[in-house]
Parts: sequence; C-alpha cells; structure tokens
Amino acid sequence: MPVVHAPPPLRWDGSRLHVLDQTVLPEREEVVVLTGATDTADAIRRLVVRGAPLIGVVAGYGLAMEVAGEPSLGALERGAEQLRSARPTAANLAWALDRVAAAARAAGPTALAGGARAEAEAIEAENAAAGAALSERGADLLAGTTRVLTHCNTGALACGTRSSALGVIMAMADRDPGLHVLVCETRPLLQGARLTTWELARTGISHELIVDAAAAGLIRAREAGAVVVGFDRMAANGDTANKVGTYGHALAARAAGIPFVFAGPRSSIDASLRAGEEISIEERDGDEVRRAGGALITVPGTPVRNPAFDVTPADLITAVVTEAGIAQPVDRETIAALMS
Amino acid sequence: MPVVHAPPPLRWDGSRLHVLDQTVLPEREEVVVLTGATDTADAIRRLVVRGAPLIGVVAGYGLAMEVAGEPSLGALERGAEQLRSARPTAANLAWALDRVAAAARAAGPTALAGGARAEAEAIEAENAAAGAALSERGADLLAGTTRVLTHCNTGALACGTRSSALGVIMAMADRDPGLHVLVCETRPLLQGARLTTWELARTGISHELIVDAAAAGLIRAREAGAVVVGFDRMAANGDTANKVGTYGHALAARAAGIPFVFAGPRSSIDASLRAGEEISIEERDGDEVRRAGGALITVPGTPVRNPAFDVTPADLITAVVTEAGIAQPVDRETIAALMS
Repeated sequence: MPVVHAPPPLRWDGSRLHVLDQTVLPEREEVVVLTGATDTADAIRRLVVRGAPLIGVVAGYGLAMEVAGEPSLGALERGAEQLRSARPTAANLAWALDRVAAAARAAGPTALAGGARAEAEAIEAENAAAGAALSERGADLLAGTTRVLTHCNTGALACGTRSSALGVIMAMADRDPGLHVLVCETRPLLQGARLTTWELARTGISHELIVDAAAAGLIRAREAGAVVVGFDRMAANGDTANKVGTYGHALAARAAGIPFVFAGPRSSIDASLRAGEEISIEERDGDEVRRAGGALITVPGTPVRNPAFDVTPADLITAVVTEAGIAQPVDRETIAALMS
Repeated sequence: MPVVHAPPPLRWDGSRLHVLDQTVLPEREEVVVLTGATDTADAIRRLVVRGAPLIGVVAGYGLAMEVAGEPSLGALERGAEQLRSARPTAANLAWALDRVAAAARAAGPTALAGGARAEAEAIEAENAAAGAALSERGADLLAGTTRVLTHCNTGALACGTRSSALGVIMAMADRDPGLHVLVCETRPLLQGARLTTWELARTGISHELIVDAAAAGLIRAREAGAVVVGFDRMAANGDTANKVGTYGHALAARAAGIPFVFAGPRSSIDASLRAGEEISIEERDGDEVRRAGGALITVPGTPVRNPAFDVTPADLITAVVTEAGIAQPVDRETIAALMS
C-alpha cells in the first residue's frame, strides 16, 4: 500500500488541539487549531470535525481546554453545555463530555484542569484501542466477503484512528488485497465522495463511487456482498441512527439477503434510550440540499426537508460490531451483553 | 393557480421541432431547434429532451424530419438506427420509431415523408390524450392521499403534456389544493431538484425538496402517504425500469405499507420482454457522478459506477396506471389486460 503523508485528523499538543478541516477536503489539507469550548463547538457544528467517535474525542479536549483556561465549576458547566448542543444525534458527544466533567469534579477544585485533561487523553487512547479491536472483529465476521458497500465517511477522518466501518474495511483489505468497495457519495454534504474516496485512494483499496440512489439496485444485482456502516447513536433495543440513507441500504440488504452490519465503539450506544423513536434527529440547514458542489442546484428558495440522520430498526441489522464483541442477532439482550 | 408563461417543452411548426433545453433549466429558458435525425439523437443523448414519453414523441419527429430531408428507405433506416441508439432504456423510443418507420413504408416510395410526418403528429396527439386520461385515473386511485413522494421529473417537461407521475400529482392537486409533494433531487443529474421543483413552483403546488437518501426514512416516518413515479420500460411480468433510486423507494413504501404506483402511457410497456432481467440498463458517463452543480465533488479520476436506471420487481408495485386502465395487482395477466 502507498505510504500516506497527510496531517492526522487530530493532534493534541498538550494544550491545543490541531484538527484537519474536513470541510475543504479533498481539495485542500488545512489544519485548524482549537483552544476552548467555543471554537470547538463551532468546529463540530460546521463539520470541520465529524463522525461520532471523533466528535467524542474532540469534545472531550474542547472541555478540557476550556477549564484549563478558566479552572472553575462554572466554566466546566458552561463549556459542557455549549459543546453538548453543537450536534444532537451523535451519542459519543454527550458521553465524552459527561466523562470529562465527572473526572474534573472528582479531581477537586484545585486539580480541575488536570483531571479534565487526563480524562480527555484517556478517551482518545481508549478510542484508538477500541477502533483497532473492532476493526479486526469486523474483518473476522465478514471473512470471505470480497465486495462491500459503505455510506458516508467512517474512516480515520471520522474516528481519529482506524475504527468504525472503514476500519473494518481496511482490516478486510489487509487480509484480502482484492477487496472492492462501493462508496455512496452521501448527499447532501458528500462525505463519501469527498472523504471516503480520498482515504481509500491513499490506502490503495479498490473502490467505485456511486450516487446514493444507485445503492439499492446494485445491491439487488449482487454487486455488494455486505453493507458495512458506522453509527451515531444506538438505542438499547438496537434501533440505530446513522447518516441519512442508511435505513434504505438496510432495506436493500435485507431484500437481497446480504449482511447489514453496524461497526463502531460502544460509546456510540446510548442505553438510556429504549428504542429508536427516542433518538433526536438533527434537521440541518436547507441550503445543504439547495446546493451541491458549491452551486445552487434548484429554484432559489425552494422549501427543503434536511434530516441529517435516519433510524434503522433492529430487525434489519445482521450484526453490531464493537470493541467488546459482536451482537448477533441484534436485540435488547445482545446489546445489553455488549455493554456489560 | 398562477398563470404559467414558459416555452412549451416542445413545439412542432410543421417542419422543425422546437424543444426547451432541459439541461439549462431552471437557470435559463432556452429553446433548441431540431431539424433531423442527427441533432435529434444528440439532443436525446445529452438529455436536452428527456422523460420516456417525450423521448418517444421527439424521436418520431426526428425520423420524420430526416425523411423529409431525404425521402428514401435508406434514410429512413439510417435515421431510425441513429435515433434508436441514443438511449437504450426508454421503451417509448423504439416504439415511436417503429411506428413512424412502418407508416412511412406503408405510405409508399412517393409519400414516404408525408406518411412519416402524419404518424409523428399522431403520436404526439395520442400521447397528450393518454396523458390526460392516465392523470385522472391516477388521481381516482389515490383519492384521499394528501402527501405524496416522487422521484426524477415526470411532468410536462418529461411528457410534453400533463402525464405520468407529475400528471397524476397535478390532477390530485386539482381536487385537493392542500396536496403536498416530497421531491427527490435525483442525483446524478438532479432532474427532481432542477425540473420538478420548477414545474411545481410554477403550478403553485406545495412541495419540499429532499436528497434521495432521505426518502426511505421520511416514508418510514409516514411523511408520505404514497409514492408515485413514472417509468421508462416495463416488462410483460410487471418488472419495471425507471430512474436509478426508484427500487429503493419501492422497498421503503412496502416496509411502511403505503402504495407504490407507476404512472405512464402504455407505450412505456415493452411486452416483448418477459421479465426485468431482459431490460438493458444504460450506464452513463462517470463525470455525471464526479460532478454536482458543475463542480468536481471528489478526488479527480475516482472510479465510478453510474447506472441510469434500476429495476423494481413487480411484487413491490401496488398499481400501474395507464391511459387504458389500472393494473392492480401487477402481474403477467393484469399487464396483458392493459395491452389488449
């Protein structure tokens, strides 16, 4: 495989967080330096950094930087609130903030900043270890699959490390260099077209880009032997929110009788939600739909619906792959076992 | 409803065909004048004119203009061949060419051009009558439905007149002015975003634009009470090719228990094909996928799959609405009854 020379998706220098700006890839590789809760929340909201696992890691550092600047419980609470509201659907965001805030409080008033920082660093390290483990587990599960379809971007850019669906795909390609990947472009923001193709090209994995609408027909024609995607928030019963379009791929996989697999860290599972109906779905700005590739593509002012996610019911999911194991079949009991 | 002032999608002046250039809508309203088989085939290939019914009408005139210029059987055959190869999937193309060629031959060597022209004019008139009839039949079938989802563009632009899915929707809106339409943008060429929103805005029908990937989740959330789409070629058993993405909408409609309806003229049914596997699916240029809104949206040179159509199996189709009646359920017998 070709050697990859690119800025890492994030780099913590001990006091500031350097993140690769994913909104300008693949045209430009620009690094943004974050220093506190305000600029970190803005980077998450604008998708400078994105992907559920990476959002968790970055939010943790954002809160740690905030209390490093003003080591008080007030700053801790304000910063957590600011970051929590940046994006509502990814489970990892609230999970990481809760961990960092709890660690800061436990460290006591004089060691608040150090406690927060140590926890943010621990989250990043655990995320990397979890990603490596789940990628190998996923490759075990899908051994023998030579063509796989994926949606959105769930690679190192979305996870900070090999993890989630693209981590599984890279582990599969380690074992079978002939692996072929169908990449859904992922309108409206085209994370598949912009980011996943970029990551696959850099790592030398065979792939083809398709429009999202082509996935179902190609799955029906057996052009993919499995669908593997990441996930943003999974309820206790296995119902799962992920990038809009995921549910349709699950229906097509079921109709074709091929596996549909969610891969991601346990921190994307929110056991406090009983079922998918309780997952809050982010509705984003209509201009994301009215525009593509920077240009207006419709009648100016056309009314738009723009849900960023959809919910795939548990009964369509073949397996959930995490660092702690695989849930298969997917139901309340197997998800509870993953979390125990 | 607001008065519509726009060039018609096509106008036959007795010797030349004036067509509205659909590749530059909604930014500009430009008319292209066609004079023979070569420029007509090019206009069909480049999607200056598109939509199965309109392709049939335009191809018929293209062949008539060709033999008006050179009234010989050789010109008739060459022109038909040239036009037939312009796009492989729409059934109406070959159907119209066969009709015009047969009429020209029947008219005899001295009346070749007149015979071709009269048949092309007859096809246009029949298409308009069929469109009006099927639009009303579709509105009867879907009486009571207040929210409908559609894909691609199947309005007057695609049919030359009220017909196909958008004809049905306009007839529904005549009866229920509160009708609301979810419009799929229809990547890669965005006919929904560019053309359907333009037609709905001009006719004052309430609508929202969505990315194609959002359709399944919105259908699952009961944001649409029915899916209505046109079709490009239907086999004798009811399996149907239409714009890529249609099959996925059919799966989502079935999962949600809402009607999935194909609407179009009988000329889109190709009874010579036994089943969907026999339908030839056009694969178009990869740059359609690599670009959106005119701009490159991915790594330059990214490999692409770009099937323009997919096939929806008959068992997912609630009903087929044509000018001759409605097939429901959809199977070999009910389709044969429509054609008899």
